Amino acid sequence: MSQEETNLQQTDFSKWYLQSIQKADLFAYGPARGTMIFKPNGYFLWKQIKKGLNDQYEASGVEEVYFPMLIPQSFFEKEADHVEGFAPELPWVTKAGDEELEEPLALRPTSETLFGNAMSDWINSYRDLPMELNQWANVFRWEKRTFPFLRTSEFLWQEGHCAYATAEEAHERVLHFLKIYQDVVEDLLAMPVYTGEKTPSERFAGGDNTYSLEAMMKDTKAVQAATSHFLGTNFAEAFDIKFLNEDNEHVHTYTSSWGASTRLIGAMIMTHGDERGVVFPPKMAPVQVALLPVGNLKKNPQVLEKLREIEEELKAAGFRVSLDDSNNSPGYKYNEVEVKGVPLRLDFGPRDMENNSCMIKMRDQEDKESVALEDLVTTVQDKLDAMQTRLYEKADQFRKANEHYDIDTMEDLQAHLDKCHEEGQYPGWVLAGWDGTEESEAAVKEATGFTTRNIPFHAPVEKTVDLYSGKPAKYTVWYARAY
Amino acid sequence: MSQEETNLQQTDFSKWYLQSIQKADLFAYGPARGTMIFKPNGYFLWKQIKKGLNDQYEASGVEEVYFPMLIPQSFFEKEADHVEGFAPELPWVTKAGDEELEEPLALRPTSETLFGNAMSDWINSYRDLPMELNQWANVFRWEKRTFPFLRTSEFLWQEGHCAYATAEEAHERVLHFLKIYQDVVEDLLAMPVYTGEKTPSERFAGGDNTYSLEAMMKDTKAVQAATSHFLGTNFAEAFDIKFLNEDNEHVHTYTSSWGASTRLIGAMIMTHGDERGVVFPPKMAPVQVALLPVGNLKKNPQVLEKLREIEEELKAAGFRVSLDDSNNSPGYKYNEVEVKGVPLRLDFGPRDMENNSCMIKMRDQEDKESVALEDLVTTVQDKLDAMQTRLYEKADQFRKANEHYDIDTMEDLQAHLDKCHEEGQYPGWVLAGWDGTEESEAAVKEATGFTTRNIPFHAPVEKTVDLYSGKPAKYTVWYARAY
Repeated sequence: MSQEETNLQQTDFSKWYLQSIQKADLFAYGPARGTMIFKPNGYFLWKQIKKGLNDQYEASGVEEVYFPMLIPQSFFEKEADHVEGFAPELPWVTKAGDEELEEPLALRPTSETLFGNAMSDWINSYRDLPMELNQWANVFRWEKRTFPFLRTSEFLWQEGHCAYATAEEAHERVLHFLKIYQDVVEDLLAMPVYTGEKTPSERFAGGDNTYSLEAMMKDTKAVQAATSHFLGTNFAEAFDIKFLNEDNEHVHTYTSSWGASTRLIGAMIMTHGDERGVVFPPKMAPVQVALLPVGNLKKNPQVLEKLREIEEELKAAGFRVSLDDSNNSPGYKYNEVEVKGVPLRLDFGPRDMENNSCMIKMRDQEDKESVALEDLVTTVQDKLDAMQTRLYEKADQFRKANEHYDIDTMEDLQAHLDKCHEEGQYPGWVLAGWDGTEESEAAVKEATGFTTRNIPFHAPVEKTVDLYSGKPAKYTVWYARAY
Repeated sequence: MSQEETNLQQTDFSKWYLQSIQKADLFAYGPARGTMIFKPNGYFLWKQIKKGLNDQYEASGVEEVYFPMLIPQSFFEKEADHVEGFAPELPWVTKAGDEELEEPLALRPTSETLFGNAMSDWINSYRDLPMELNQWANVFRWEKRTFPFLRTSEFLWQEGHCAYATAEEAHERVLHFLKIYQDVVEDLLAMPVYTGEKTPSERFAGGDNTYSLEAMMKDTKAVQAATSHFLGTNFAEAFDIKFLNEDNEHVHTYTSSWGASTRLIGAMIMTHGDERGVVFPPKMAPVQVALLPVGNLKKNPQVLEKLREIEEELKAAGFRVSLDDSNNSPGYKYNEVEVKGVPLRLDFGPRDMENNSCMIKMRDQEDKESVALEDLVTTVQDKLDAMQTRLYEKADQFRKANEHYDIDTMEDLQAHLDKCHEEGQYPGWVLAGWDGTEESEAAVKEATGFTTRNIPFHAPVEKTVDLYSGKPAKYTVWYARAY
């Protein structure tokens, strides 16, 4: 490996990312602009996320549905902020076969309008509430700059849509579903996140409050990993979702929505990957254990035989296992295991056979270790669990090392950025005071490209002065460059 | 129930179907023409089918992927028959935001072209073969007449796409995946089917052979429940999918595709439903066991308490259970359980409590039966298993009672249709000889609306004379009216 390649993650993060996801065989570009194909390994990651979230949704009593993808133009126009927010990115179906359609149909960018319209039919009385629905679907946003997994013209996501009798209940559940995202992202994807509220300028188009998970990538840029929106009565008014309450009055419901998408896959890779490529948390890895026979197999056929027994034993215990018995060189095989991000490599040769042991090499560590074949299932489980924890902790340490609490003025920020630029360092996140005005946010963005990420529920420290205006701060916010 | 309602399944099958799926709360109409919303109960049915098929695909080594939905116009034009077959039904995206697209993009009606294009990149050598991929996706066909589940502008399906080194291997796997459909449809949906080959006029646009499952609905019309296509080298030639074989020659692969869709849900309902509405096979039912407390719950609160214990016991054993403790009348509750198609109703009141027993009523039978609470899990499992088998056998008997083997000429067929019309009977299926010409098929269709369904692998009898031409038959085919 050349010095340049070794440092690619530091010198050209985008190039490192594209190379890494290509070597891991996760995706291919689709023919239409900004679209992508999820290859088997890439799609497996999505299935894991889906399973993790669905288990929680089931436990929460959410019901799964599927709504049509095409949205009549007139639906968007019912909520003014909503149409303004999404219109520039909407692809339109205007004809079918040879016929022009009477009304253009948008490919859904999100489905508040469709759910709102249906809920106005389905909800009549307080007995119909709460209504908590979720769908897994493809959605479309025709953005100028696309990037595999993180920002694509078509992407996959889940979108929850709920209606409640009171604002309090709606709000409570908005935070409940945010917490589910946090639990799954931290537990399964081993990504530490800051939960908090978005500022009004970064809110969902048509919502009253938006809450988000914000995660730090290895180039210290932020990814908004999932969002949960309190929509007030905005969509209920636009779509006439009313119910008869216990006092026999017809009143509007409060609605909410929440979504997480395939961008989580890109965020996970940008959180854990290293200079050799992707590193998968064991709970997510398409292959958790790669078995490699060592030495001359023709001379020692019993090595492969024993390794197949080990394969069966590990598979029976529920691990996802591969065995490479090809004629490729050991170096080639080791590299394959690394670039595919397999957490645990198990080497087994004639000497291991004699000793009833094997060699284990973890993807995120340098050393190999000899372990006994006895209790192998327990050993493998322990090693995978330890790695899962280790990845979370490493990411958390990285994040903390790149958080800046001592930048209180634009001069401080500019000096910091100049220093980072000179030293070839990534600029990290800045915890700063905010006076609550759009003007301050816009000025910081204009000067530095830093945008507010969220107002964290649990800020490491509370700030008192606005970063831009110097006025008293109403909020403590995270500022960062973001994907 | 009025006499008219009682006979609706016989007098107006479409109306019966629409009423039944509405009462069972399976769907709602979507706002765009011919689209539908899958409500929780309807979507549950699809998840069951998905699970049933995915288990088999996994065991067969098929890999799951996701391809983009938008297909450039130029892709369709590469396979002449394919574009001709699908062009009239394609919805087109022509603009995004305010911009006209340079090339219109079709919403996928099926994805042979996209997979073909990708496989030409991914396949280089015989070592890359076989390649067997599957995706679950939404697809679009803008048809004139739509009908919930059976024919909708957007529907959900899986589509398998495979490439092989030899025609023999491709063919063998085409039949393997057809067999999986048959197993799942017969086992899970309790629907007997005829497997066989479609005639050339009914083939997939761009394929060499199409095989299908054909099922008989209660109005004796046929539903093509799933198809598996041998595509020869047609798509390999159109998309240049070549590989280096073991003799070091660059040759085209053989490709195949196979699909099953949400129309299976409609077919299942039209197979098992009765005059009271839907009847779900126990393996498919969203709720398998409905628990109803009987008598005055205020006077006997311990009845509800005990019923909750029963609920926990059955849930712990893996059954899908509901308990209706509302104040609605028993009549209302019984009706709800019936129209929702719940296989097993369990009534429990003070007297049952004394006797340590309960009453069981199966959805497809008239009588109630008192059973002991001891070993209830085993009893419930046995009753559900028996109903699953019974539904299959009833459907098989119905099918056989409506198969006609003795119609050998157009005069016979016309006489049969006249008689059915007079007597208000459905016309059934006709097993007939076919001389292999499109002319004969077209003439039968023109005169009667009967089309060839398939050339069954296992015809009940072999026919020797063409139904229309009177010439020697080359094949024995099923003729029927179809959805």
